[in-house]
Amino acid sequence: MGEIRLDLDRSLRCGVPEIIYAPGKTVEQIGAAMKAMRRAGQPALVSRIDPSQQEALQQEFPQAVVYPQARILALGEGVPSSGAGVGGISIVSAGTSDLPVAEEAAVTAEWMGARVARFPDLGVAGLHRLTRRLDEIREARVLIVVAGMEGALPSVLGGLVDLPLIAVPTSVGYGASLEGVTALLAMMSSCVLGITVVNIDNGVGAGVAAARINRLGENA
Amino acid sequence: MGEIRLDLDRSLRCGVPEIIYAPGKTVEQIGAAMKAMRRAGQPALVSRIDPSQQEALQQEFPQAVVYPQARILALGEGVPSSGAGVGGISIVSAGTSDLPVAEEAAVTAEWMGARVARFPDLGVAGLHRLTRRLDEIREARVLIVVAGMEGALPSVLGGLVDLPLIAVPTSVGYGASLEGVTALLAMMSSCVLGITVVNIDNGVGAGVAAARINRLGENA
Amino acid sequence: MGEIRLDLDRSLRCGVPEIIYAPGKTVEQIGAAMKAMRRAGQPALVSRIDPSQQEALQQEFPQAVVYPQARILALGEGVPSSGAGVGGISIVSAGTSDLPVAEEAAVTAEWMGARVARFPDLGVAGLHRLTRRLDEIREARVLIVVAGMEGALPSVLGGLVDLPLIAVPTSVGYGASLEGVTALLAMMSSCVLGITVVNIDNGVGAGVAAARINRLGENA
Amino acid sequence: MGEIRLDLDRSLRCGVPEIIYAPGKTVEQIGAAMKAMRRAGQPALVSRIDPSQQEALQQEFPQAVVYPQARILALGEGVPSSGAGVGGISIVSAGTSDLPVAEEAAVTAEWMGARVARFPDLGVAGLHRLTRRLDEIREARVLIVVAGMEGALPSVLGGLVDLPLIAVPTSVGYGASLEGVTALLAMMSSCVLGITVVNIDNGVGAGVAAARINRLGENA
Amino acid sequence: MGEIRLDLDRSLRCGVPEIIYAPGKTVEQIGAAMKAMRRAGQPALVSRIDPSQQEALQQEFPQAVVYPQARILALGEGVPSSGAGVGGISIVSAGTSDLPVAEEAAVTAEWMGARVARFPDLGVAGLHRLTRRLDEIREARVLIVVAGMEGALPSVLGGLVDLPLIAVPTSVGYGASLEGVTALLAMMSSCVLGITVVNIDNGVGAGVAAARINRLGENA
Amino acid sequence: MGEIRLDLDRSLRCGVPEIIYAPGKTVEQIGAAMKAMRRAGQPALVSRIDPSQQEALQQEFPQAVVYPQARILALGEGVPSSGAGVGGISIVSAGTSDLPVAEEAAVTAEWMGARVARFPDLGVAGLHRLTRRLDEIREARVLIVVAGMEGALPSVLGGLVDLPLIAVPTSVGYGASLEGVTALLAMMSSCVLGITVVNIDNGVGAGVAAARINRLGENA
Amino acid sequence: MGEIRLDLDRSLRCGVPEIIYAPGKTVEQIGAAMKAMRRAGQPALVSRIDPSQQEALQQEFPQAVVYPQARILALGEGVPSSGAGVGGISIVSAGTSDLPVAEEAAVTAEWMGARVARFPDLGVAGLHRLTRRLDEIREARVLIVVAGMEGALPSVLGGLVDLPLIAVPTSVGYGASLEGVTALLAMMSSCVLGITVVNIDNGVGAGVAAARINRLGENA
Amino acid sequence: MGEIRLDLDRSLRCGVPEIIYAPGKTVEQIGAAMKAMRRAGQPALVSRIDPSQQEALQQEFPQAVVYPQARILALGEGVPSSGAGVGGISIVSAGTSDLPVAEEAAVTAEWMGARVARFPDLGVAGLHRLTRRLDEIREARVLIVVAGMEGALPSVLGGLVDLPLIAVPTSVGYGASLEGVTALLAMMSSCVLGITVVNIDNGVGAGVAAARINRLGENA
Repeated sequence: MGEIRLDLDRSLRCGVPEIIYAPGKTVEQIGAAMKAMRRAGQPALVSRIDPSQQEALQQEFPQAVVYPQARILALGEGVPSSGAGVGGISIVSAGTSDLPVAEEAAVTAEWMGARVARFPDLGVAGLHRLTRRLDEIREARVLIVVAGMEGALPSVLGGLVDLPLIAVPTSVGYGASLEGVTALLAMMSSCVLGITVVNIDNGVGAGVAAARINRLGENA
Repeated sequence: MGEIRLDLDRSLRCGVPEIIYAPGKTVEQIGAAMKAMRRAGQPALVSRIDPSQQEALQQEFPQAVVYPQARILALGEGVPSSGAGVGGISIVSAGTSDLPVAEEAAVTAEWMGARVARFPDLGVAGLHRLTRRLDEIREARVLIVVAGMEGALPSVLGGLVDLPLIAVPTSVGYGASLEGVTALLAMMSSCVLGITVVNIDNGVGAGVAAARINRLGENA
Repeated sequence: MGEIRLDLDRSLRCGVPEIIYAPGKTVEQIGAAMKAMRRAGQPALVSRIDPSQQEALQQEFPQAVVYPQARILALGEGVPSSGAGVGGISIVSAGTSDLPVAEEAAVTAEWMGARVARFPDLGVAGLHRLTRRLDEIREARVLIVVAGMEGALPSVLGGLVDLPLIAVPTSVGYGASLEGVTALLAMMSSCVLGITVVNIDNGVGAGVAAARINRLGENA
Repeated sequence: MGEIRLDLDRSLRCGVPEIIYAPGKTVEQIGAAMKAMRRAGQPALVSRIDPSQQEALQQEFPQAVVYPQARILALGEGVPSSGAGVGGISIVSAGTSDLPVAEEAAVTAEWMGARVARFPDLGVAGLHRLTRRLDEIREARVLIVVAGMEGALPSVLGGLVDLPLIAVPTSVGYGASLEGVTALLAMMSSCVLGITVVNIDNGVGAGVAAARINRLGENA
Repeated sequence: MGEIRLDLDRSLRCGVPEIIYAPGKTVEQIGAAMKAMRRAGQPALVSRIDPSQQEALQQEFPQAVVYPQARILALGEGVPSSGAGVGGISIVSAGTSDLPVAEEAAVTAEWMGARVARFPDLGVAGLHRLTRRLDEIREARVLIVVAGMEGALPSVLGGLVDLPLIAVPTSVGYGASLEGVTALLAMMSSCVLGITVVNIDNGVGAGVAAARINRLGENA
Repeated sequence: MGEIRLDLDRSLRCGVPEIIYAPGKTVEQIGAAMKAMRRAGQPALVSRIDPSQQEALQQEFPQAVVYPQARILALGEGVPSSGAGVGGISIVSAGTSDLPVAEEAAVTAEWMGARVARFPDLGVAGLHRLTRRLDEIREARVLIVVAGMEGALPSVLGGLVDLPLIAVPTSVGYGASLEGVTALLAMMSSCVLGITVVNIDNGVGAGVAAARINRLGENA
Repeated sequence: MGEIRLDLDRSLRCGVPEIIYAPGKTVEQIGAAMKAMRRAGQPALVSRIDPSQQEALQQEFPQAVVYPQARILALGEGVPSSGAGVGGISIVSAGTSDLPVAEEAAVTAEWMGARVARFPDLGVAGLHRLTRRLDEIREARVLIVVAGMEGALPSVLGGLVDLPLIAVPTSVGYGASLEGVTALLAMMSSCVLGITVVNIDNGVGAGVAAARINRLGENA
Repeated sequence: MGEIRLDLDRSLRCGVPEIIYAPGKTVEQIGAAMKAMRRAGQPALVSRIDPSQQEALQQEFPQAVVYPQARILALGEGVPSSGAGVGGISIVSAGTSDLPVAEEAAVTAEWMGARVARFPDLGVAGLHRLTRRLDEIREARVLIVVAGMEGALPSVLGGLVDLPLIAVPTSVGYGASLEGVTALLAMMSSCVLGITVVNIDNGVGAGVAAARINRLGENA
């Protein structure tokens, strides 16, 4: 009892790397899961890794790649991006403190084969910076929009761009931000139709959802 | 026991009409308060009046004026607007359902002598409509911004206009809007500095606050 | 002040009918909006219409179509479904009381040109009924999953189907269901990656999001 | 003032070991309680013990047994399991991080004389793993189902197995999981009738309840 | 689309009548479900039926039995109680306003074949009344304890009786009772180990759970 | 099953009239309780009575007294006030809409034999009115302070008067008042030591508590 | 700016020691306040003192007395208890972890001159222990009842004792206990009339309130 | 990706220093932002700086000024206060623990050119201290009122002073204070019209809003 039973078949079948959420797991539990995946020739991402977990795992898996801002440790090889120059995912984020979540989404989507364009620091307080980059943002097939505090950015972008839009509330803020709950509820309550939302700080989930939608366009 | 004791001196001293919140009060209680104010030569506003209260009070006070969209019944005369052509208050609101709250703010401020310009239906889903009217909005000394649902409009306007800005969350929306609590928390959590907020649907409070700030500019 | 300013250009540009949320609006406000859309040759949906609004609007717009279970009144013509026999949207719902929300999503998506397959009454309490229909459900490009109470259905389906999946919590339930908030939070917290969520009872929003994703596959 | 007054009679009478919840108690308080129980020839479990409490108590009570994953320190002897080969309690848990709570329930029930079968890592995201083991799970008299995040597992199992089912929400998850409150509310709101729920992370309570129900079958 | 798909096999297999939750369903939907059950020779309970639903259904199903205090309409025949004179379920409730929920639990359990003893009006404010009847209460195999407001009764009884105990919080109370949420949280937080809890006002769920546990003793 | 079992002994013993909370009870249930009390020569108060309950009960009990603002119907005779001219309870309330709760407290305390002085409409917005009456307020042995909205009045009075002070939050207000929860939490969080609080709108509870404290002084 | 301005007159006038809440204050701020009080010959209590604050303050004020379990540091002399052998305050607490709050109440009341009898470890899970000591508990003029988790003890005691009763919820518990909020709401919702409640863990407030009520009896 | 893109134009245009919220940002991110501002000749404030960030930044920017109580590090020069002897902002705060938030507001407003008068330790528990200083407080154009716990001070002051009043709830308090949420909701619910509120502990936001309003009077 205690090992992580991996669903290897499924991951291989659909090109999604196995993703292990590190908090609350011991290094031993994570390591055992990673070994099982390596035996199966299957890529794996460990998310929300903390410095001490990272150090221990890098020692055990020297070939692992670490994405420090995204707090991800990756093993194996992701699906190669299928195309060149067109489409993909635009990830727009509001503030400097939202970057780790945006990067988590980006790295996850890239490991699933998507091309990702990053648009950091485009919060609604500086609307001209956002509108200036609108044409670039629109070149994607899917949008991920990351914001904390009042979570207004998805509503603003959703009114400007007619693409599938996944909103990611973050726990950035204090007081009435209620550790991201306010942004989550605000994104849910958006006056713009067609926005969908993932859990607070859930960059991985947004990356997976966007990569799946993106493939629809690629495969067609 | 039971009568509304009015603070007539104070109202006369500062040109604020006495404002009676109708819900939960009997027609008799409201009527007694209005008579006391009439005796004192003091204007009065009854807010959130419902149709049956309105009918009974209009019968008793035929000279009362009713503002149906604002749900206000007014008796006496407000402070005349001091100036012409400049300054005053811009009231920007997001959706059609936010209009009663916006009108409540407008009528209250006008009775306190402020000139009010109304900018309805400028929600963040149609940003070009908002930016098109930005120069007019900016002509005021103070902004009142009324929005329900995700409550993003004050953040967007607050990033575009450097004026005192009072945000009014409304109970418009459903589900995750939590009857206005989400908009209230979102406005509180705004990434734009300098926004202040009043209670959900509190058009009267926003009108009083804005009129006071507006006078600062007028008197100076 | 008070009219609904429509964003006609945008709707025409992207084949999304204008959607008017009826609660809190007067029949006059809704009617004025519908007339503006008719003048512009633009289709429109009125959602969450109640019986008295419906009666008044049908009298004024005899050519309007009413979808009673979806509580939608539609005027004009939607975008024709582009394809035949393949793809489209599967809408899976948990219980009988979730059907109005599922139908709202279905009618909205159909007016945006999507083919929709409906899978009602497949709650997790009767898992064998769900698995029996899994192959049909999987034929779509996108899934909409509608459930109230504990909101477990999207997690179960998300583990079985590798498609973009939009979860719709409903206000079905009582007590600890907190009028849909529990289902919303549960769907947000799903152990299955890649699920995205819309507001409680927001069939229209899910329909718009799914139709946009569906087009990605169609256009490609 | 300050000592833990033990209810020795009751425990002896019904074969329930005295259970001491360690957090917020000093080592002295716990030790005094354990001594009183030893004098009375009564078994005792200390739950949620942290490493420093454990070290101090093991030094004082070298004969104590520690169950590290369950975070339980036990003194004395539990009630021997009455039967062989049949019945007992099946404990099904969703993810690796739910194991400490599942183990807490298992050890508690075992000390009360129940035979316990463990079924870890059977979350709803991998439904085939769950259904593959259904026949084994069903061999019990009572089910304990442990899950965090969206807490869907009890609903799924409750639809498949007609046994008394005790659901244990865990604090596993982040953001919208609200430290287990979401799983608790979801389990409460289950569309499957007959599920009962204990407090978040309350493995001990689930173990006691299940052992009591299990005895009903044994004694009959 | 729209009919209630019944899981007839399962109900027949385990002697649980099909239970239909009436709120939010049309009389047509309920009637169709009842007809399907009658065709299958299967008993059915309709719970939380309101007076207008009751009248319409009694007209269509004259043989249906109505339990007014329990707000249940029943069709067909329940499982006969297996035993005589001993065992069964004790249902203890706190106040007069908790009786409908207690009766809902009682009728449900009786239709599943359990003998039920009722102990109304034994709230903790009058402890002597409770202790006077303790010996009778203890004669059961399982306890259902129904209480609103502060929900203290299960803790008090749980300290006095060593039986499986299912607590049912009710929405009785006002203000800080938060429509039953306080009682639910209090029962969850009980200092007495082994109490399990169902949803607010969920008499049906408690009845099903208790009847299942009761059978364990009967069958053994 | 269903009758209200009265605890007559206790009431007689301590001079507290039996108090029946009317909401959620049928006229028959209330009437049966009142008859039992009449037989026992015991006074009774029915609180929160609505107009239709009142009419039916007055027809059955013509000798009953109704206190319309307090929403209380009383039968029998209360304990006579022991003293004259000094001491007793001061009940201070903030606004006109708080009067029904203040009166509920006053009538309850008077039926328990306390002399009550009423101080209505002394909200913190008009502090000079409050301070003007401070000497009268201070003549009591106990204070009851009734306020809704932000619930600031108990803190202000508690800083001015060194008497036992019972705060009663009311559900007066809207939006962020959260139906009295904000006032309740605010009174709980008071910076003034020694304030104790009862449930929202719980005038009866405050009256009972204050009358008990008042007796301490009288009896001594 | 920054010093604590003491209200020395008031304290002297009414025999309440100045009470300083230590958390969030620097040792310098606390020390300055204590010096001012010493200069005025006024006793002072510092509550919720942590070990490092305690050490620094004891060095500066060697004559200060520390009550470790109550987490109080006291300087000066309290009011002497007026009487002998009779009356005073009974402090009943539920569990071992509630003792620090109970002691905080006890020490505070004693410094205000009250005689205090302590009744620890009388939680509702062991009702016979509580009833065995009921006669002693009843000898007081006022009751303080301290409990965490489900907070049922005040309801149980309130049904057995006709004295003023102040309930103190504590943050003891986990999960659904919500750090004391559940106990607070439960105590507020008590089915027993006349219970009043103070903030979570607010032993000081309960002590002050009880001592004031106690004096009423002493002085009379 | 990762740098803080500054909106230098805007700051220069309106005399607002760029304000960087330090929590959640690395020293590198803050330092990069400060360098950009220095290059642009633009003043900057870093708020909520912790000791380790402060030390690192002071080493890199030796000319920076630190305001320890306000937890602000400032670089460059603020706008000089325009006037002398009249007007400006009065900042009233309730308790010693509210001082850091009050100072944050004060320093922010001073850097925007406002003259600020500080009125610490004027909580409602000592009303006479507040009223004694009322004439000084009233000399301002705008009021900032800072309070935690029950947040009553803005209501009390709002009833005494007819000036624009910005209320700042703080996280001071415990238990029912809910880390400032109670004060926030209470200030929102104030019975005094015209109060506006900022986020919990948001001294910077209050300072910016007040300085903007103050300028209205200065410029006019």
